[in-house]
Amino acid sequence: MKKKNNSKLKIIPLGGLEQIGMNITAFEYEDSIIVVDCGLSFPEDDMLGIDLVIPDVTYLKDNIDKVKGFFITHGHEDHIGAIPYVLRDINVPIYATKLTIGIIDNKLREHNMLTKVKRKVVKYGQHINLGCFRVEFIKTNHSIQDAAALAIYSPAGIVVHTGDFKVDYTPVFGDAIDLQRFGEIGKKGVLALMCDSTNAERLGFTNSERTVGKTFDNIFSDHRDTRIIIATFASNVDRVQQIINSAYKFGRKVVVEGRSMVNIISIATELGYLQMPENTLIDIEQLKDYPDEQTVLITTGSQGESMAALSRMAANLHKKVTIKPGDTIIFSSNPIPGNEKAVSNVINELFMKGAEVIFQDAHVSGHACREEIKLIYSLVKPKYAIPVHGEYKHLKAQASIARELGYDKENIFILSSGNVLELDENEAKVTGQVPVGDILVDGLGVGDVGNIVLRDRQHLAEDGIIIVVMTLESGSGQVLAGPDIVSRGFVYVRGAESLMDEAKKVLDDVMDYCMSKNITDWGKIKTEVKEELSEFVWKKTKRRPMIMPIIMEV
Amino acid sequence: MKKKNNSKLKIIPLGGLEQIGMNITAFEYEDSIIVVDCGLSFPEDDMLGIDLVIPDVTYLKDNIDKVKGFFITHGHEDHIGAIPYVLRDINVPIYATKLTIGIIDNKLREHNMLTKVKRKVVKYGQHINLGCFRVEFIKTNHSIQDAAALAIYSPAGIVVHTGDFKVDYTPVFGDAIDLQRFGEIGKKGVLALMCDSTNAERLGFTNSERTVGKTFDNIFSDHRDTRIIIATFASNVDRVQQIINSAYKFGRKVVVEGRSMVNIISIATELGYLQMPENTLIDIEQLKDYPDEQTVLITTGSQGESMAALSRMAANLHKKVTIKPGDTIIFSSNPIPGNEKAVSNVINELFMKGAEVIFQDAHVSGHACREEIKLIYSLVKPKYAIPVHGEYKHLKAQASIARELGYDKENIFILSSGNVLELDENEAKVTGQVPVGDILVDGLGVGDVGNIVLRDRQHLAEDGIIIVVMTLESGSGQVLAGPDIVSRGFVYVRGAESLMDEAKKVLDDVMDYCMSKNITDWGKIKTEVKEELSEFVWKKTKRRPMIMPIIMEV
Repeated sequence: MKKKNNSKLKIIPLGGLEQIGMNITAFEYEDSIIVVDCGLSFPEDDMLGIDLVIPDVTYLKDNIDKVKGFFITHGHEDHIGAIPYVLRDINVPIYATKLTIGIIDNKLREHNMLTKVKRKVVKYGQHINLGCFRVEFIKTNHSIQDAAALAIYSPAGIVVHTGDFKVDYTPVFGDAIDLQRFGEIGKKGVLALMCDSTNAERLGFTNSERTVGKTFDNIFSDHRDTRIIIATFASNVDRVQQIINSAYKFGRKVVVEGRSMVNIISIATELGYLQMPENTLIDIEQLKDYPDEQTVLITTGSQGESMAALSRMAANLHKKVTIKPGDTIIFSSNPIPGNEKAVSNVINELFMKGAEVIFQDAHVSGHACREEIKLIYSLVKPKYAIPVHGEYKHLKAQASIARELGYDKENIFILSSGNVLELDENEAKVTGQVPVGDILVDGLGVGDVGNIVLRDRQHLAEDGIIIVVMTLESGSGQVLAGPDIVSRGFVYVRGAESLMDEAKKVLDDVMDYCMSKNITDWGKIKTEVKEELSEFVWKKTKRRPMIMPIIMEV
Repeated sequence: MKKKNNSKLKIIPLGGLEQIGMNITAFEYEDSIIVVDCGLSFPEDDMLGIDLVIPDVTYLKDNIDKVKGFFITHGHEDHIGAIPYVLRDINVPIYATKLTIGIIDNKLREHNMLTKVKRKVVKYGQHINLGCFRVEFIKTNHSIQDAAALAIYSPAGIVVHTGDFKVDYTPVFGDAIDLQRFGEIGKKGVLALMCDSTNAERLGFTNSERTVGKTFDNIFSDHRDTRIIIATFASNVDRVQQIINSAYKFGRKVVVEGRSMVNIISIATELGYLQMPENTLIDIEQLKDYPDEQTVLITTGSQGESMAALSRMAANLHKKVTIKPGDTIIFSSNPIPGNEKAVSNVINELFMKGAEVIFQDAHVSGHACREEIKLIYSLVKPKYAIPVHGEYKHLKAQASIARELGYDKENIFILSSGNVLELDENEAKVTGQVPVGDILVDGLGVGDVGNIVLRDRQHLAEDGIIIVVMTLESGSGQVLAGPDIVSRGFVYVRGAESLMDEAKKVLDDVMDYCMSKNITDWGKIKTEVKEELSEFVWKKTKRRPMIMPIIMEV
């Protein structure tokens, strides 16, 4: 660590603090930048056809010589998902705990990048020195194991970043959150706290993960005569462990189904985060060898994702599992905002197949509620509060908690993506803005779908397209063939032929007009075609399909 | 009513009992059919570009001579919305209470059908004789005034249909639900109960509408210094009344904004369902003449609908109202399933503009919870239970309530759209199926968008379209112009030109191949073009745009 001088620490969210997803924050002090997390987000409803969204890291690329490394708090997609894209250009080491690195390794392997990126496993309590910074990993609890908070020591002061966390006094695996260390660091004097806001609207405490295990035991006890299928988040290894425990206790074999579930379970088992009793796990092909009441399926699809295993079972599209009357199906999850309808649809389909569906009370959150947030503030006692992680309303809710705890408005910062917050003991303020943005990933294409393409897709999705083609004679501009009309996504019924016939007459008139006026400029002809046809179609149908004139010349 | 003989009563849901929306049920006895409700539903996510969905009433058209009339339980869209479409072909009288008819009149007027359809206003307690049926209207409570349950007297027995209802002992306007009459009819002996299932998963009782008035008073009292903007359902006139009451009490002027809100308030005021104190209502243009703290806006947009007034205010697109820091904005509503994300987005936008947003506790449901459902069952004591209104899981939840109350499985019927349930005192069973379905309304088009168009729109939305045009010489089949490539909604970036150049080479090769093999059949040429180009594009981009070859001939 450099000798302290008058420089300030800069905190720059690059992925949008105000949105869930794309967690990526740069910490800059003089010639050093470190980055916390490197997440992706999933597309909004209006990003048609888009698979993923990753952050624009132009700022890091422009300051590539300063960037020393990435620190990853835990292995969820909104914290690690952009690594294979971002680390292509910014090849510095990644630091994280063991399971987190295991999950990152798997991801890099899929992108053929495992040999290209350095990863370092860090233990809780360990300190990493990089440039002007020292970073300490602190044990927390979350809905994935091996989650860490970070204490970031800079010459301007200490920043504590909680990552995503909850306080679990009785975790299923490993230790409870290291509250003592939060207190100890707080006692040294902390400049700023960046604390998870996801559940800042919810009163009280989040229940221990262990309570879900009791619920499973009760459900297993009440349903001894049926097959049990449980959908949950693949990455929640503790949840999976508790299902396995209940299965073992009640003499059932366990089948794991869904690609991401199989992946994570194999990583977690290999690294020692999941204990599978002998003779418990069976292959899905072996299901038929056991009576229903001696089996449990653990599956993906708890969010109603159309391609996930449970959704395919519900829709009768799964090759190996068919839902039967009497099956007991448990959603060990809550719908993530935006997925409510999809989850409901799957639940309804399962009910229609005669299954019993349990979709309440078999889940706890991985995020801290209001009282836990107060606890962390009271241990860390930062000078500045910087709510992170959550929608804007959640950040506001944490800000109001900070206000309750006596913080002045001036010491609470809700940052927007790209904001440069400069801070030291004397002062903190937003002093600038760096370029940030969403990069859309569609198939193999990274960033090649922009607003124009999205707008076109929206237009095509709403009303379809009408294509008008014609061949003109070179020189004279005489119509040799066409204009012909083809449409897709517009209308398709009995009445449509006559509509198209009338439209063709409109176009013939347009071309006659153009010829008579000696209009031979293709741009002008296209404009005429678009305007006249568009007006005709609107009058007849109240729709505005995309109209696309194409002229060829021979 | 005909003399009783051995015929059975048929109950036929035509719009899908298992889905919210499209409530329309035929009751048939010998030569008489009456229909209860005539609703529309809103499009699912995969119905791109569709405005509305209405039921296919082929069965009614095929039996037009039997159909005697429509009975409408209340004025919500999912019970009245399809009237202008269905009554075009099936022109029989509509029976409903006064406000319901008022709302229907307004709708018919918009469709220029007011003079074409007969409407009859019915009072609670009144009986209507139509063919073999007699229908009695019974007072209930709901989130719209003038809601009715129906007692349908047929020679095979009495069916009680609750409509959408809750039990409100202290309604804002008019009387509480007529529980005595439910009991009295129950005492006569009821064949079947068709009861609202929407809240069948929720424990306890739904709170009285009046409790929301108290909440408004508290919020008004706590926010004396700011403008107040309240979003709620236009049709909830009691809610609007309570806002007006609080506004009057606290000396504020009221502005009403949003087309549907203005419509309903004017109908309700005209018919005497809404009391507006003098000098309370002002025009939106007058807002500027009053200080913020002396105004209240009542607005549409409580579901985050992108075109509604509040959403436009939040997005800075509203012409007359700009959200200011300090504004107090109340969502007097819960998100309807599927709208959660849209509502959250609007809330976040409002917070970002510095407004205080209250989105909890200022709403009560209009539907009966579990204890209320039990109450109705216990008053009516039907022989058969037919849960209606709600998703499949809600119908299942009511079925489980009926089971708790001691009903045999065999006496509980969860019907699917088109099922024909035949019943009398001795027996009830599903004996057949009539044609039913969704008719999609898009612009002026009713039913002219089908599965092919929707599939094309989905495809266009996901990956866009590549159009390949060429002009061939008549006779020889020689290529005179093209093949040229145009795309929309596909990719649009620096790299795209070279991708398109390569694609053009692929097409030239295809055409050379076709020429060399003497392939002149247009169908075959198009197939070759599609296959080769599709493979090339997939290999390069992992996307599958729609590929559309167009050939012209001169």
